[in-house]
Amino acid sequence: MSIQKPSIPKGTRDFGPAVVARRNYIFGIIRRTFEKFGYAPLETPTLENLSVLTGKYGDEGDQLLFKVLNSGDFLKDVTAEDLRNEDGRATRRVLPKVAEKGLRYDLTVPFARYVVMNRGTLVFPFKRYQIQPVWRADRPQRGRYREFYQCDADVVGTDSLLCEAEIVLMMSEVLNTLGLTDFTIKINHRGVLRNIYQALGGEGRESDLFVAIDKLDKIGRDGVSKELLERGFSAPVIDTLFELLSVSGDFQEKLERLLAGFATAGVAPETAEGYKGLRELGQVLELLRGFEFGQFQNLEFDPTLARGLSYYTGCIFEIKINNVNMGSVSGGGRYDNLTGSFGLPGVSGVGFSFGVDRLYDCLEELNLFPEGAAATTRCLVANFDSDTMLRMLPVLRELRAAGVASELYPEPTKLAKQFKYADGKGIAYVLLQGPEEAAAGVFKLKDLRTGQEQTLSLAEAIAALA
Amino acid sequence: MSIQKPSIPKGTRDFGPAVVARRNYIFGIIRRTFEKFGYAPLETPTLENLSVLTGKYGDEGDQLLFKVLNSGDFLKDVTAEDLRNEDGRATRRVLPKVAEKGLRYDLTVPFARYVVMNRGTLVFPFKRYQIQPVWRADRPQRGRYREFYQCDADVVGTDSLLCEAEIVLMMSEVLNTLGLTDFTIKINHRGVLRNIYQALGGEGRESDLFVAIDKLDKIGRDGVSKELLERGFSAPVIDTLFELLSVSGDFQEKLERLLAGFATAGVAPETAEGYKGLRELGQVLELLRGFEFGQFQNLEFDPTLARGLSYYTGCIFEIKINNVNMGSVSGGGRYDNLTGSFGLPGVSGVGFSFGVDRLYDCLEELNLFPEGAAATTRCLVANFDSDTMLRMLPVLRELRAAGVASELYPEPTKLAKQFKYADGKGIAYVLLQGPEEAAAGVFKLKDLRTGQEQTLSLAEAIAALA
Repeated sequence: MSIQKPSIPKGTRDFGPAVVARRNYIFGIIRRTFEKFGYAPLETPTLENLSVLTGKYGDEGDQLLFKVLNSGDFLKDVTAEDLRNEDGRATRRVLPKVAEKGLRYDLTVPFARYVVMNRGTLVFPFKRYQIQPVWRADRPQRGRYREFYQCDADVVGTDSLLCEAEIVLMMSEVLNTLGLTDFTIKINHRGVLRNIYQALGGEGRESDLFVAIDKLDKIGRDGVSKELLERGFSAPVIDTLFELLSVSGDFQEKLERLLAGFATAGVAPETAEGYKGLRELGQVLELLRGFEFGQFQNLEFDPTLARGLSYYTGCIFEIKINNVNMGSVSGGGRYDNLTGSFGLPGVSGVGFSFGVDRLYDCLEELNLFPEGAAATTRCLVANFDSDTMLRMLPVLRELRAAGVASELYPEPTKLAKQFKYADGKGIAYVLLQGPEEAAAGVFKLKDLRTGQEQTLSLAEAIAALA
Repeated sequence: MSIQKPSIPKGTRDFGPAVVARRNYIFGIIRRTFEKFGYAPLETPTLENLSVLTGKYGDEGDQLLFKVLNSGDFLKDVTAEDLRNEDGRATRRVLPKVAEKGLRYDLTVPFARYVVMNRGTLVFPFKRYQIQPVWRADRPQRGRYREFYQCDADVVGTDSLLCEAEIVLMMSEVLNTLGLTDFTIKINHRGVLRNIYQALGGEGRESDLFVAIDKLDKIGRDGVSKELLERGFSAPVIDTLFELLSVSGDFQEKLERLLAGFATAGVAPETAEGYKGLRELGQVLELLRGFEFGQFQNLEFDPTLARGLSYYTGCIFEIKINNVNMGSVSGGGRYDNLTGSFGLPGVSGVGFSFGVDRLYDCLEELNLFPEGAAATTRCLVANFDSDTMLRMLPVLRELRAAGVASELYPEPTKLAKQFKYADGKGIAYVLLQGPEEAAAGVFKLKDLRTGQEQTLSLAEAIAALA
């Protein structure tokens, strides 16, 4: 074995003990919330067949999939002819011959695959959550990794808007429990966006409108107007658009004003899609009132919310933490045909996802991690010499039996070194029994954060630590 | 998107809700035990550079590594010449040009890499545990997967035998907590094996002896004797071997008898390695007595225990569950030079690992999973019609506020269908409020396991469920 300076791949990370503990704190709150709402855990393999993954994420997604080389003689079907790249298609010819598997790219496609493969035995509506890493061969940059976790909850097999209302409840509960109480949940409905297109006579040109509206945050109303004019929309149409997009008021008022606006603009109320979007948003609002949801001030009906993923068909959600310079920490929506590409059409579902890296950064920036989140040994038992070492073993046993995470410094050595160890590891307490304390049958318990020292019996020390 | 019948790669598995919950039950016990003993969590990336992985697991291991195709134009450095396979080395030539990364093969090499990369900031002795999946391109077969979890705990930076004693304690605690109380922890020391070679004049021929001894379980004493005779060992030497290997008695007695046997056989007590193995095993025994370890009947000093991994240098461990037809569920040992290949020599460490798939199978076979392990919704609230649906929302809210995982069936539908749903999902209770109960302001709580039904106030129902 040659000696080398080891490294990890770009866009991947090691998580040391303190970071793992803090990440687990976030995962734990998300998991408990999902479970309290009746979602059950699912885990799918890291390796998926490329036949399952390819074509599900668009061309760019196909490029960003990590592909795994076939085992053994992976070249056996590759010919010199395949390598000739005059047509620029060599990699496309070779790829299917050398790689059959890829790494999970998101949690939604594997979920859809699982539902289709197990449709005979699953109980519907099927509510599952999934907390696992995904891999994308994206260019790594600050806050964007090639290996990162997603936390998804989805329910398939029901149209009930109860699911949408409960997504709002779960989003709020997770953020409140994390202490991130200043957030905004934006909600919209793809049907509302469709109504807006109709109102503008823009049907069939949704994507132009959509691309422009999506830039509202960045280039402002003037910029968007200019772009739409260039694309051939008339000034009065653009005025109507902004009138519709900028309806003011609370959730209920916006619903009513849009309804009136659509009527004025001549959107036929009786079309199949009709006012489904507004109607469903109204029902979600009613359900949330039924739940006595206490944070309507944090819930905003935003007719400009579009969300990129094309498979959404109903309500869509997005959360931002206010006063933190960071993209959305959670989002989701309803889709009508998730499993269609696997041969099971007509299964409606709705789901959402938390971005744990962004939540982590928010908690860190706002200094909201509780002290206990960096779980570590609670008590270090000092090791004076080989005699005390043996005498400390039953002590250690009793501490652990009482549930106190504790360790004995593994070798007799200078106390200063042992305190340094405790300090470096973030251990809060050191328990000592020097010759004097041994003679008196007592212990010293030192709190490293305050420097305070108490002389206690073992039972008292355990009571103080447990 | 074409319609296709989806599948998952051979040797991988989906874990549905019931299985995830049971696996988490096992992981939770392992994690809590590790933490109680002062081990802190570490997570390393799934993707490692092949320069880190290659050459660490032997030639077979290199073959079994999953390699990840480089992103983008992965063929850019491959020539038609590279493909010419007259020398049978085409894949070896092409591999480094098309793949730089691979999937984690075990948790030990990434741990060593992490220690070397972070040696400047880590506090030593560094005690870490790691529970993550690993990937091996092995031929899949019953009980052997291509993607499976390992649960490792290691401490590096100390020679203290306290670590070995605590490994015995942790192994016992995990198994006892899981209810797998009938187990045997076998312990040996590589030094004892070396002493045996010395006693036989077999130094330099360790591997012949080792291979033969490793077959004792399968081909018995006669088979091993035959093989050793064929390899040129004399009959008296083989007799000495079996005398040494078959020492009887408890831990202490075996130590003493081997000590005597080595002396008789003329093993020089003063050699550098000397009787280090026996001495250290004696110290581990003394430490366990100091801990008042209560299961010496489950701890067996087995001089025939060899364990395959060549990097072990000190104590070695292995656990079998008795009366279950299954290989070892846990094993480990001390190594003296784990980080040497990464340029950091002389770091001694000791570690061990649980095989969660085997533990799972044992618990299942012995019917030891507790009922609560299949965590699911505790209470389904029945949905009669859209009026009751709205009335049930605050009920649901109160149940969840009390920590009761609960859900409302998302649509008003036949009760039979709702009960079937509860049954299929393993939900224990259904809470109902039909028109009669609504008029009286009470609820019916039905226990689906017993069929028993109670009429209760909401507060009483919550008390019964919480």
